Amino acid sequence: MRMIEAHGERTSPKLENIAFFRASSPAFQQQIAREAVELKAERRKVIILSGDTASRFYFIRAGWIKLYQETMDGTEAVIDILNAGHVFGDTALFHGDIYPYSAEAAEPAVLLSFPAAALKAEVESNPKFAVAMLSSMARYRRQQDQELEHRTLQNAPQRIGCFLLRLTRQDGAESAVIHLPYDKTLVASRLGMKPETFSRALAKLRADTGLEVQGSTITVRDVASLSHYACTACSSQYPCRDVIGS
Amino acid sequence: MRMIEAHGERTSPKLENIAFFRASSPAFQQQIAREAVELKAERRKVIILSGDTASRFYFIRAGWIKLYQETMDGTEAVIDILNAGHVFGDTALFHGDIYPYSAEAAEPAVLLSFPAAALKAEVESNPKFAVAMLSSMARYRRQQDQELEHRTLQNAPQRIGCFLLRLTRQDGAESAVIHLPYDKTLVASRLGMKPETFSRALAKLRADTGLEVQGSTITVRDVASLSHYACTACSSQYPCRDVIGS
Repeated sequence: MRMIEAHGERTSPKLENIAFFRASSPAFQQQIAREAVELKAERRKVIILSGDTASRFYFIRAGWIKLYQETMDGTEAVIDILNAGHVFGDTALFHGDIYPYSAEAAEPAVLLSFPAAALKAEVESNPKFAVAMLSSMARYRRQQDQELEHRTLQNAPQRIGCFLLRLTRQDGAESAVIHLPYDKTLVASRLGMKPETFSRALAKLRADTGLEVQGSTITVRDVASLSHYACTACSSQYPCRDVIGS
Repeated sequence: MRMIEAHGERTSPKLENIAFFRASSPAFQQQIAREAVELKAERRKVIILSGDTASRFYFIRAGWIKLYQETMDGTEAVIDILNAGHVFGDTALFHGDIYPYSAEAAEPAVLLSFPAAALKAEVESNPKFAVAMLSSMARYRRQQDQELEHRTLQNAPQRIGCFLLRLTRQDGAESAVIHLPYDKTLVASRLGMKPETFSRALAKLRADTGLEVQGSTITVRDVASLSHYACTACSSQYPCRDVIGS
């Protein structure tokens, strides 16, 4: 009998629809679909802890997950905030099966968890899947390269604009509606800004590009104008599909 | 007959001594050793261009290589500066065989170049090598996560201290001698600082930790004291081997 996680429910998801699993073998998909557990996480629930042995990895069905680290002097550093469609905890496999960051729900979230051991076996035996993971990590690496670049070259309103553009579908639609986490200080941390800098910069971005902010919902009426505003100080071009992870 | 690159010479290096190749198959090592070309690059020589089709990837035998991108408004963003022992151009394989950055010699450099097609074939057919590459990319990703974290949490002298510590052997030695590129503005760009900020911060770091600067050579008499100074605002611990690439 398998252990069921606290607050978790066994489930049988369709894995072939999840980009992360696309290159994996049918046998692996069947195995982890059987061992998948659905988990509903309240806001602030800690899902994994940096330094812990990795037994599971996670797919986000809904909500926002914050990845973070604590420094030796006790400050929290937000590494990333991920929304639906992203996977986390998977790279523990390349850090001696130890989670390289902590993760908690930044909003109420619905997750699927899968056995980490099965992932490791699949990566080691299926070169096609290994190459797909490498490609996904290369895109993430490029995204981080750009993030570092942006800290130097973009001003604060441009960085917020870039962050919003990455959350759109990038499918050529004229307008977009984006749901941010309620806690805006989290977005500020993710972008390496103080909350007051973030507020001022968002106000300037509204004034300059006409985007509409209602609580945590942002409406971009003119995606092209926002990309023109944000992407001139970037080495990539909008749509920046090449840097979006799976 | 194989084409020999401009200014290049055929060579037969011992690849088993290079960390990057450790998990690769003997057949692959023999093949690329045969096709290896040694290249001496003067300062400012452009080695690869972002967006070009990748035919070769490179190992740095000596010198410093700058990886960079140009933004749409013409500014150059320094992504990384790499010294001897590092490989670059390899990840083109995961970007549709297109180089995701440009590279030029920041100092006179000695490089070995290898055929990119052979690398692709090896990754796709040797899961052990694919996993080794994934692990190396995961370490790099963690290093970038920390870099982003540091931009927020460390002050400028600490960031220079961290950069210097990463260039030491991290083998427990009390002291270390580090050779930086002559062009200090490059190190400043790499750390996302203005040259004048870098100069002031380096002066403060000298005053606070007693390191000695002579031209481009830096002597750290007391590595433990420097790590105490730089690493308190970091989520990793010195030695930070887990975040050093191959």
